[in-house]
Amino acid sequence: MTTNDDALPDAPAGAETPPAGGVSGAEVRGGEARGGLSRRGLIGLAAGIGAAGLAVGAGAGSAAGVAVGRARVGASEASVHPFFGVHQAGITTPVQDHLHFASFDMMARTNRDDLIELLQDWTYAAARMSQGLDVSATGAVGGSPEAPPDDTGEALGLAANGLTITFGFGPTLFQTGAGEDRYGIAAQRPAALTPLPAFLGDDLDPLASGGDLVIQACADDPQVAVHAIRNLSRIAFGRARLRWSQLGFGKTSKTTADQATPRNLFGFKDGTANILADDTAALDAHVWVGSGDEPAWMTGGSYLVARKIAMLIETWDRVRLAEQERVTGRDKAIGAPLSGGQENTAPDFAATGPGGAPAIDARSHVRLAHPDLNGGNRILRRGYNYVDGNTGLGRLDAGLFFLSYQRSPDQFVALQKALATDLLAEYIRHIGSGVWAVPPGAAAGSYVGAGLFDA
Amino acid sequence: MTTNDDALPDAPAGAETPPAGGVSGAEVRGGEARGGLSRRGLIGLAAGIGAAGLAVGAGAGSAAGVAVGRARVGASEASVHPFFGVHQAGITTPVQDHLHFASFDMMARTNRDDLIELLQDWTYAAARMSQGLDVSATGAVGGSPEAPPDDTGEALGLAANGLTITFGFGPTLFQTGAGEDRYGIAAQRPAALTPLPAFLGDDLDPLASGGDLVIQACADDPQVAVHAIRNLSRIAFGRARLRWSQLGFGKTSKTTADQATPRNLFGFKDGTANILADDTAALDAHVWVGSGDEPAWMTGGSYLVARKIAMLIETWDRVRLAEQERVTGRDKAIGAPLSGGQENTAPDFAATGPGGAPAIDARSHVRLAHPDLNGGNRILRRGYNYVDGNTGLGRLDAGLFFLSYQRSPDQFVALQKALATDLLAEYIRHIGSGVWAVPPGAAAGSYVGAGLFDA
Repeated sequence: MTTNDDALPDAPAGAETPPAGGVSGAEVRGGEARGGLSRRGLIGLAAGIGAAGLAVGAGAGSAAGVAVGRARVGASEASVHPFFGVHQAGITTPVQDHLHFASFDMMARTNRDDLIELLQDWTYAAARMSQGLDVSATGAVGGSPEAPPDDTGEALGLAANGLTITFGFGPTLFQTGAGEDRYGIAAQRPAALTPLPAFLGDDLDPLASGGDLVIQACADDPQVAVHAIRNLSRIAFGRARLRWSQLGFGKTSKTTADQATPRNLFGFKDGTANILADDTAALDAHVWVGSGDEPAWMTGGSYLVARKIAMLIETWDRVRLAEQERVTGRDKAIGAPLSGGQENTAPDFAATGPGGAPAIDARSHVRLAHPDLNGGNRILRRGYNYVDGNTGLGRLDAGLFFLSYQRSPDQFVALQKALATDLLAEYIRHIGSGVWAVPPGAAAGSYVGAGLFDA
Repeated sequence: MTTNDDALPDAPAGAETPPAGGVSGAEVRGGEARGGLSRRGLIGLAAGIGAAGLAVGAGAGSAAGVAVGRARVGASEASVHPFFGVHQAGITTPVQDHLHFASFDMMARTNRDDLIELLQDWTYAAARMSQGLDVSATGAVGGSPEAPPDDTGEALGLAANGLTITFGFGPTLFQTGAGEDRYGIAAQRPAALTPLPAFLGDDLDPLASGGDLVIQACADDPQVAVHAIRNLSRIAFGRARLRWSQLGFGKTSKTTADQATPRNLFGFKDGTANILADDTAALDAHVWVGSGDEPAWMTGGSYLVARKIAMLIETWDRVRLAEQERVTGRDKAIGAPLSGGQENTAPDFAATGPGGAPAIDARSHVRLAHPDLNGGNRILRRGYNYVDGNTGLGRLDAGLFFLSYQRSPDQFVALQKALATDLLAEYIRHIGSGVWAVPPGAAAGSYVGAGLFDA
């Protein structure tokens, strides 16, 4: 809402939506399909999936079955964020309650046209789903009974729930495979978009790391976020393949001042000093790629870093409160720095406690990560808690799915290096990692990442 | 709410709560700890966890740090269900949005007293958490700074969010190990509480099946449900060990008429004909163990069956709509039976379609599972959707975490046998399974399962 000033207006029930790519899709919402056209790729999707798949295209308007759109109910559930705009949604958007994050690899034998068409199809479907609509005009039940529905249907009856869908390009997308530049974009690779260096204590799982493409879906209803990733995965059929994914809940950062600071699974408030969505100056300085930055096609974009950080919570839970607070550098109850005050009081690293020792330990997390000790370096955090069941030893397999946006990946690298002596490191393990260039938002009528191919 | 008529009243902020076991716990809510006593077992917890663990008990009232309780905000978030009552909460309670389900095994060398004390400690903590409180009076930050807090803290600031915590006993709890009856309860085992028989197509993972004890935590905020399981696991330290667990979202059944029928990940409405919480006659007939049933300690209880059912959603998504509806026996859009009408119209299995074929296929899921073809056999369903990330092949690892409550496990067994020829079986795999005796609710001042030990 705050960042998409060139945005598609919210579509009222039954209104026509101008999807990306200049192809008009007619709405289906509790009435009959009105002869809408599916995107070329979506037709290809239906046609390409075996004998049962008849094309659902221009002729779908006469489909049997009652076409039912997705209702809008309740204020929070009805929340809609525009998909098109200067910046992609899902960065400064007020953090939603749930995350489904998915990394994809392009399939072998795909070419530039395949990649462009995939991004166009994803844009079309993402713009629709962001409005609480099915992935196409024929949707979940409005197509021919003799064809698989375009939409998988589990979000029927659910509103948009604040869904945002954010796309990014990994370093490997720009790599030249076997000496050739498959997608003709190697020359457009941002110089800073390289795999992250190894950090002290990294224990990375390749199957929770990297990926040519990434999608971050956030919504206040997990079924809406899951529906988005599932359908975008399906649309990618034959072109890109899900590499790894992560569900998250219980946001661990806030991006607006009226959001309460959430707690991570160590029981501490997290993200107190995050960059807020209305702090335009800080966003321009630390998050958005500026018009003077290279490459030009990234202007208005950002860089996304994901780190899957396993927390050794059983170990942490046996640490005395005073030590938990020393490690963190903050009070557990209200999140105040140990130098005193309230949650939003600036930490005073010179303050001393009883006996003259620093009130905030020199190796505490809050001190090592603080901008004042990192040359003013700030990032926008947008992470979630995760629980992936339990380990074979009967311990919860849980932690923090750290997500941050920054103007350059170098900001994250510098901060993570500064955390090398972090007292918290004893209680966490970085087990997944990735970095992606997040292009600016698509203009209405265009698609995400178009600038990369026009460059 | 509907089932706990001997219930603990909702505690206002700052009020004293009478927890189970007759031990009084003083509230900590935004003020200082008021000298509350922890349960014996909780003191044992703190004392038993290593050198850092000092006992937090009667002396904790003078603890440093500002003690902060859990706020109550918003109508849905503030929803509180009584823990004590005739029946356990979480069976006919309106289905919440999120599930954390955990199965435990008793540890070697535990005896009857250990089991009783564990159930007392769990009762104490569960009763408190159900009210939106920390696990003990000293809680997450009110204890001594030199001790690990009793509560792990990630739910600080979150209200009860409708949390229910439901406990059950598996067949293995009653088994005699190496010729001896460890817990002295073998004679009390319900005759029907035996491991489920193997069903056609079962592909069960032992690490997602069985367990001596089970806890079903449901809440409208996933962090609240996760907090409950985490803290109950922690309280079990040295006595029971987490065997397997499952997170779920997007409830797949309703238990009150005003809840919309949710959709499963096949995109179909699920649980349309579920037993509702106000249908006392059906509950007495099909869900609650009656006073004439054996054994007497189970009167007012029920039997829980869990089945982890993986859905082959990519395969399903390529099936044409007409076939999806034939398999299900219902229309996808509104959930009406294929014999016509609306969602709640009774299916007419005699109705024929064009050409004289049955409108509802004889092997459709709705027909094979219908009470009319199963001697009136009904169960109360309470399942959730799940997504456990993705498989190595890039497919979503997703499905239905089926939960049902019934007066006897035999009801589930008969229904599952009737589904042997279910058309749906081609698209699903049962990969986890368990059955537990769910004792009646605890009376205030007692603990869950007390009747088993008094028998």
